[in-house]
Amino acid sequence: MTTGPGSEGLPASGRFREECGIVGIWDHPEAARLAYLGLYALQHRGQEAAGIVSARPDRGGLVAQVGVGHVADVFDRERLDALPGRAAVGHTRYSTAGESGRRNIQPIRIECKFGHIAVCHNGNLVNAHILRHELVDRGSIFRTTSDTEVLVHLFAKSGQTDELEAVAEAVRQAQGAFSLLFLTEDALYAVRDPRGFRPLLLGRVGDGYVVCSETCALDLVDGTYVREIAPGELLRIDRDGVRSIQVFEEAPVSQCIFEHVYFSRPDSRVFGRHVYRTRIRLGRALAQHTGIDADVVVPVPDSGLIAALGYHQESGIPLELGLIRNHYVGRTFIEPRQSIRNFGVRVKLNPVPSILRGRRVILIDDSIVRGTTSRKLVQLARNAGAAEVHFRVSSPPTTGPCYYGIDTPLRSELIASSQSVEDIRAYIGADSLAYLPLEALMDSVGEEQDRYCAACFSGNYPLAVPEAETARTLFAKDRR
Amino acid sequence: MTTGPGSEGLPASGRFREECGIVGIWDHPEAARLAYLGLYALQHRGQEAAGIVSARPDRGGLVAQVGVGHVADVFDRERLDALPGRAAVGHTRYSTAGESGRRNIQPIRIECKFGHIAVCHNGNLVNAHILRHELVDRGSIFRTTSDTEVLVHLFAKSGQTDELEAVAEAVRQAQGAFSLLFLTEDALYAVRDPRGFRPLLLGRVGDGYVVCSETCALDLVDGTYVREIAPGELLRIDRDGVRSIQVFEEAPVSQCIFEHVYFSRPDSRVFGRHVYRTRIRLGRALAQHTGIDADVVVPVPDSGLIAALGYHQESGIPLELGLIRNHYVGRTFIEPRQSIRNFGVRVKLNPVPSILRGRRVILIDDSIVRGTTSRKLVQLARNAGAAEVHFRVSSPPTTGPCYYGIDTPLRSELIASSQSVEDIRAYIGADSLAYLPLEALMDSVGEEQDRYCAACFSGNYPLAVPEAETARTLFAKDRR
Amino acid sequence: MTTGPGSEGLPASGRFREECGIVGIWDHPEAARLAYLGLYALQHRGQEAAGIVSARPDRGGLVAQVGVGHVADVFDRERLDALPGRAAVGHTRYSTAGESGRRNIQPIRIECKFGHIAVCHNGNLVNAHILRHELVDRGSIFRTTSDTEVLVHLFAKSGQTDELEAVAEAVRQAQGAFSLLFLTEDALYAVRDPRGFRPLLLGRVGDGYVVCSETCALDLVDGTYVREIAPGELLRIDRDGVRSIQVFEEAPVSQCIFEHVYFSRPDSRVFGRHVYRTRIRLGRALAQHTGIDADVVVPVPDSGLIAALGYHQESGIPLELGLIRNHYVGRTFIEPRQSIRNFGVRVKLNPVPSILRGRRVILIDDSIVRGTTSRKLVQLARNAGAAEVHFRVSSPPTTGPCYYGIDTPLRSELIASSQSVEDIRAYIGADSLAYLPLEALMDSVGEEQDRYCAACFSGNYPLAVPEAETARTLFAKDRR
Amino acid sequence: MTTGPGSEGLPASGRFREECGIVGIWDHPEAARLAYLGLYALQHRGQEAAGIVSARPDRGGLVAQVGVGHVADVFDRERLDALPGRAAVGHTRYSTAGESGRRNIQPIRIECKFGHIAVCHNGNLVNAHILRHELVDRGSIFRTTSDTEVLVHLFAKSGQTDELEAVAEAVRQAQGAFSLLFLTEDALYAVRDPRGFRPLLLGRVGDGYVVCSETCALDLVDGTYVREIAPGELLRIDRDGVRSIQVFEEAPVSQCIFEHVYFSRPDSRVFGRHVYRTRIRLGRALAQHTGIDADVVVPVPDSGLIAALGYHQESGIPLELGLIRNHYVGRTFIEPRQSIRNFGVRVKLNPVPSILRGRRVILIDDSIVRGTTSRKLVQLARNAGAAEVHFRVSSPPTTGPCYYGIDTPLRSELIASSQSVEDIRAYIGADSLAYLPLEALMDSVGEEQDRYCAACFSGNYPLAVPEAETARTLFAKDRR
Repeated sequence: MTTGPGSEGLPASGRFREECGIVGIWDHPEAARLAYLGLYALQHRGQEAAGIVSARPDRGGLVAQVGVGHVADVFDRERLDALPGRAAVGHTRYSTAGESGRRNIQPIRIECKFGHIAVCHNGNLVNAHILRHELVDRGSIFRTTSDTEVLVHLFAKSGQTDELEAVAEAVRQAQGAFSLLFLTEDALYAVRDPRGFRPLLLGRVGDGYVVCSETCALDLVDGTYVREIAPGELLRIDRDGVRSIQVFEEAPVSQCIFEHVYFSRPDSRVFGRHVYRTRIRLGRALAQHTGIDADVVVPVPDSGLIAALGYHQESGIPLELGLIRNHYVGRTFIEPRQSIRNFGVRVKLNPVPSILRGRRVILIDDSIVRGTTSRKLVQLARNAGAAEVHFRVSSPPTTGPCYYGIDTPLRSELIASSQSVEDIRAYIGADSLAYLPLEALMDSVGEEQDRYCAACFSGNYPLAVPEAETARTLFAKDRR
Repeated sequence: MTTGPGSEGLPASGRFREECGIVGIWDHPEAARLAYLGLYALQHRGQEAAGIVSARPDRGGLVAQVGVGHVADVFDRERLDALPGRAAVGHTRYSTAGESGRRNIQPIRIECKFGHIAVCHNGNLVNAHILRHELVDRGSIFRTTSDTEVLVHLFAKSGQTDELEAVAEAVRQAQGAFSLLFLTEDALYAVRDPRGFRPLLLGRVGDGYVVCSETCALDLVDGTYVREIAPGELLRIDRDGVRSIQVFEEAPVSQCIFEHVYFSRPDSRVFGRHVYRTRIRLGRALAQHTGIDADVVVPVPDSGLIAALGYHQESGIPLELGLIRNHYVGRTFIEPRQSIRNFGVRVKLNPVPSILRGRRVILIDDSIVRGTTSRKLVQLARNAGAAEVHFRVSSPPTTGPCYYGIDTPLRSELIASSQSVEDIRAYIGADSLAYLPLEALMDSVGEEQDRYCAACFSGNYPLAVPEAETARTLFAKDRR
Repeated sequence: MTTGPGSEGLPASGRFREECGIVGIWDHPEAARLAYLGLYALQHRGQEAAGIVSARPDRGGLVAQVGVGHVADVFDRERLDALPGRAAVGHTRYSTAGESGRRNIQPIRIECKFGHIAVCHNGNLVNAHILRHELVDRGSIFRTTSDTEVLVHLFAKSGQTDELEAVAEAVRQAQGAFSLLFLTEDALYAVRDPRGFRPLLLGRVGDGYVVCSETCALDLVDGTYVREIAPGELLRIDRDGVRSIQVFEEAPVSQCIFEHVYFSRPDSRVFGRHVYRTRIRLGRALAQHTGIDADVVVPVPDSGLIAALGYHQESGIPLELGLIRNHYVGRTFIEPRQSIRNFGVRVKLNPVPSILRGRRVILIDDSIVRGTTSRKLVQLARNAGAAEVHFRVSSPPTTGPCYYGIDTPLRSELIASSQSVEDIRAYIGADSLAYLPLEALMDSVGEEQDRYCAACFSGNYPLAVPEAETARTLFAKDRR
Repeated sequence: MTTGPGSEGLPASGRFREECGIVGIWDHPEAARLAYLGLYALQHRGQEAAGIVSARPDRGGLVAQVGVGHVADVFDRERLDALPGRAAVGHTRYSTAGESGRRNIQPIRIECKFGHIAVCHNGNLVNAHILRHELVDRGSIFRTTSDTEVLVHLFAKSGQTDELEAVAEAVRQAQGAFSLLFLTEDALYAVRDPRGFRPLLLGRVGDGYVVCSETCALDLVDGTYVREIAPGELLRIDRDGVRSIQVFEEAPVSQCIFEHVYFSRPDSRVFGRHVYRTRIRLGRALAQHTGIDADVVVPVPDSGLIAALGYHQESGIPLELGLIRNHYVGRTFIEPRQSIRNFGVRVKLNPVPSILRGRRVILIDDSIVRGTTSRKLVQLARNAGAAEVHFRVSSPPTTGPCYYGIDTPLRSELIASSQSVEDIRAYIGADSLAYLPLEALMDSVGEEQDRYCAACFSGNYPLAVPEAETARTLFAKDRR
């Protein structure tokens, strides 16, 4: 059973794009191979590029291997063998199009007064633009358009002489969402921003340590879970073990609720919670709040699968897999010139007419972004003979973009930013449409719900983003 | 939701390998592109190589594009544009390893006294060895090791002067399982062996025709279903339309039951039956015949998914997706030297501990081949904390290989060929193991059950295969 | 110093295309590697595709590795390691464009009643068309458009039971130019047509044997020269050594004079003569017959280089390398849209103005085919300031195509087929133009001159080619 | 005729490695394509990597395309089309092995307070190490190991507000050998160090400008020569035309004599002199100073070709091309396990026995580095039957490495650094060995001889290099 992001292969029109996955290994004889496996398990967090940097044991320095594509394509035995040492960090990401893509691949590896250092970053700084301008004015040069390079400069320019202090000074200047790994020749640093937007956790493997975004990375390397890295915590892992430092003033916690709704793998724990269970709860709550009489519950694979199972469990309406996903979706796909109706969706999904024909169908998905894909799904179901199509969404309407590390479309592209639920229903052509209420979503994460950010649903942004919208366009000229 | 063959990517140890998918298009302005889409939809029938031959309209002759890999990788816009004309045939297949692989890619295209011809073949001749020896003695030369080349020689050597008669004469000499397409400059021929082992159906697209293995290929090109091509039927499709000829003496029909158990896509119809519905029935029957008290039904993704849903529907035991599949499985995968327990399975599947822990689990799969994968799955579930693991199989024990077009392991590798159910249970480490009884399997296809071959389960081979076991080794020296 | 064909890289407009190089190794522990080196040394005879077949020692059968491109690109260590055994044959060739290219790569390897056999062919049959039609009528199938496949069929269809007799019977039916290698599991056969159009020689390496087109292949593998294989001779090399048979009725010998003029490498011996020495003689004779007062002799690199040296030696006029060749010419080359004068030639050659300016220049090349390149060369020299440009050609006017194994342009494309020397001079824009007289060319090969074919210069075709012009177009529809 | 660096393909053991070629285009509608052609013509200056950056006209910013390999392989139509704009700079270079290779590819493109800038560099700073340390201490970060990045930092950190002033300030801090191009959105800068070690010249193409290393780049784009850029001169080319500034204090000029001996293409002018003519003079002088009675003068292709022609002209001893170069040398070449004598050289060169046998041979090359190749050449000639082999070198013994932009072996690897001429003669096995005297070399460049650096021959280094030997090893740990 596969769940998690459904956008492998074809351009994910109408989907959120992914963010990033990071992994660090400390003190293991096959550090780079474990980082590789960890990235592989985190592949759903970014399928466009991957990189690993390892610390060379005897000769000093850091070695990098990076490339465009899936983790399993970027790395082969030879490239992994070229990454010696007992420590490594890895990164998997989505790619901006064009020639800047290769330059932006992480980890970023540089040399500065503290020696060689490699940095991996999951998140988005809200003051990157300001920091960048200040740095440039002081003579810094930038080779990429990423926020991460800003952090690297802050570290290199630090007035501190102690490496740990310099890391602390650098991250203290950053505002926004960040889970970060720094690898030097002597230590692995891991840090989460004070609000803890993005996940990061600590585990053990053999006698060494793992730091990674989700527990699924830990599972694949046969590691054991230790604990979440706390919001605002900075860890230094070196030959003397793990040291924890609080480098930020305390702040309210704002963990990303969307990790539970869509991003994380269902077999993972994030922010200490089981994703699978949370999604079942979302589906059950959806049945409670938006219940309707129907013949069959059909998930949109794979994003709506577990919520649909919860809906079925709560409602008692039979679950059927009425939309079948094609596993072999390639990166590009050639359509006939004389185009085929709903081609983009058909290439990925095929309805099972014997299930849908004459039935009142409840289609379940995790969210609606632009509405275009949902519209095609409703048409597919109707063409397959569905008597009624009721669309249910296991989260509230997505009314605003994310400024904290998720690459969402512009606000104007989010259908729920400007359209009423009834308008959206009419657009996608469903007989009815209902979303999970916000309170029900927050209930799904239990008592800790005030530790979550749901700004994309509520508009209640926990961190001011005065320049966020424009920051993106500063280097837009550098993108093709 | 994806179902069908689960062996994309990693070597499918313990799995049946796939057979082939074929598609023919007649009289459509974008014949090659439709063939490409058809192959894409049939990708689950063979992921290792693909080819398309089109008939060049004005200049005569046939044009070929073939390659190793997935359909979406073999063909790009340029290669499709190099396939002009209003008629095309395509083939997707598994590949034998090594250098003979490329030569064996279909369609086979040759020139003979009837002009240019291309042939696609799904199946296995039981008298290929004899025919080949006769042909070689008479001075024929062979460039491949495939049965298909035998058919091509029979056609070229025919004493007939009429093309249709020559096709009929050629196929009449063949014994065994074959669904075949012949494309010449003037016509498309489609033929099924008299027992109809392998599927083949006729559809329409625009003003033209489609012939393909499963309806899912028809769906993707927005075609409409016309009818199955009957066992023993030869169709000639040309500018005058479709002509049907019975070229064989009537014989009992022996359609492959395993298409319903595993091969075909659940959204397809094969042999005129809905695969999805049949699999639900298999799951329900499995619950009726092998029911046991447990807390949760968990499918082995994706092969056991729909049967598990049926089991759940019949038993009322909750369905949970306790094994999560990794979508991004690459072709090769590098394991650490210090190897990880059950690595091969873990790379593909990850258990959801919050679902399995402390539960009595019913694991459902479609079949057990060697038993090695099933054993690892049971271990994964136990390691994730399952209190009990009951393995249920939605078909009977696989006791014999297939000689009719499915590339099964040798009999000695089939665990059920020599081990009792209790022995197998002990080997895979389950608390209990049960298979679907043969009668229940046959019931699942209803009144037509006497038109099916279940030899791999029953040992009751409908067609003598005196030389089948040895035929394979004749050219084994040509395989690396 | 490089000489020989100058057409590496850019399309050799105005140049003859190459023919083929073949090599056979018998009884050497690294047979495939020696074949590879031999092909590498023969690369100038065909740069578009290469293949090697080796005989597998213990397991029987023949193994092939073939590919499109230069020898050094087609083969890597892995592919060579996949070619075990103590015997091998290899082939390098020019490629016809398009999709038929891959199929036509040699060696052709098939299975027939004599077992596995691989065939390499240098030459062109004049009765291929007739033989092919007869074979097709009798039920043979053809997968390629090459003459070689005809020979393979003749061998497979032979009524003989002895392998050697079958080879003899097959080649006896062929008419035209052919130097052939047959490799079976037990023997290596080498044969030259009775007129001996194309070269083939025998050498030793270690305890084993080498058969190859030119001695340069022998030199690279550190082999020793034994003798030419005689026109009409068939050799069988097996564990009992070398057996020689005359299988043809005696015929006048017609060795290709153009091997000396252009094709063969200057460091080779072909037909028992030193190429370098012959080319020096051509240059000297050119000075004697076409001498003119001038300041400097400048070769067209590399095809005119050695003849220019001979011209200089005879005339005493200083030699200067006034046209410099670019070594790094790629396969394709992107011209600006706003095109550059004489771009195609400039990318390959650059004049040295300090040599040419104000000088009376004698440009020397081996031949003029279409005249377009010569025209550009004259322009380049003039633009660089040459006071006079006298063009001298070290062979007679090329008035007719070759039907014996060289892929010449059509007769209508040969400028000398329809234009007088004066017309050609005017077209290329030279101050004077002169060719080497035919008698002087023939003198260059000494007493054996009646054993040479000079049909492309004389129009005196030694073998009737009733169907040669049309034979080429039979399968033209199969070429793009 | 090809001359210049002979090391295409196989590792140039015993050869100097190349340096770099640079080209800039200003105000031409196809700037990137002209830069590509220019790089192609300069391919002999660095065959391992190439890159082009163009200035995007309307949208601002700079666009880059870089890659590993020959220019013709790195760029295709698509990549050139992705480089819009009327200005571009390009770079071709040798590559250090391993993973740092890709990062070091030029042009370097960054963003700083002056906006986007791209830099190309030919040369070597002698104070790079010191500058780098200072920059790192002040918080700069380095992503590569190249001197060029130092220059970029100096520019970005400049206290100047005017871009031109900042360029001037940056280059004034640099000591050593550098010919540099800076491309910004508004201007193209070109600068030569005050001693003018490396060449750089100005030309026109259409209404625009070209700056490049040698005139051969100008020739290919059909440009016209304007003048050398003077040592110590900084040019700013912008919409107002060309402005020239002297930014350095006057210094003695030290142009690299080795450009004439070996590096530059013979059809080029460098430092205002014709390379071809200079090499002829070297050969003539070699005959005058080291003349010996012999039968034939044979060049080592292609490095000794023109000097050999000069030697022949002066001495009257016949020139023969007794060593034939193989044009199709691949990048890697697989030797048999049972290795072949002198394999490395044989793959590249083949002797012509009919020329060498029984003759007293004078072999001519431009230089001897390690002596290993020369030794093999002498053996080849002897094995081909030469009666005597006299080795003549058209430059003095190479006794010291270059610190000014040529990647020479370590001093200890230069055979002439520790061995007498007689010792070297004995090592290479020649009957006699003689070098061109230093004075004769300097005479070859005429009256301007005091404007040349011949430190690699004389040990007279014009610029102190206190740290040069160690600077190279600073980042050696970053090289594999």
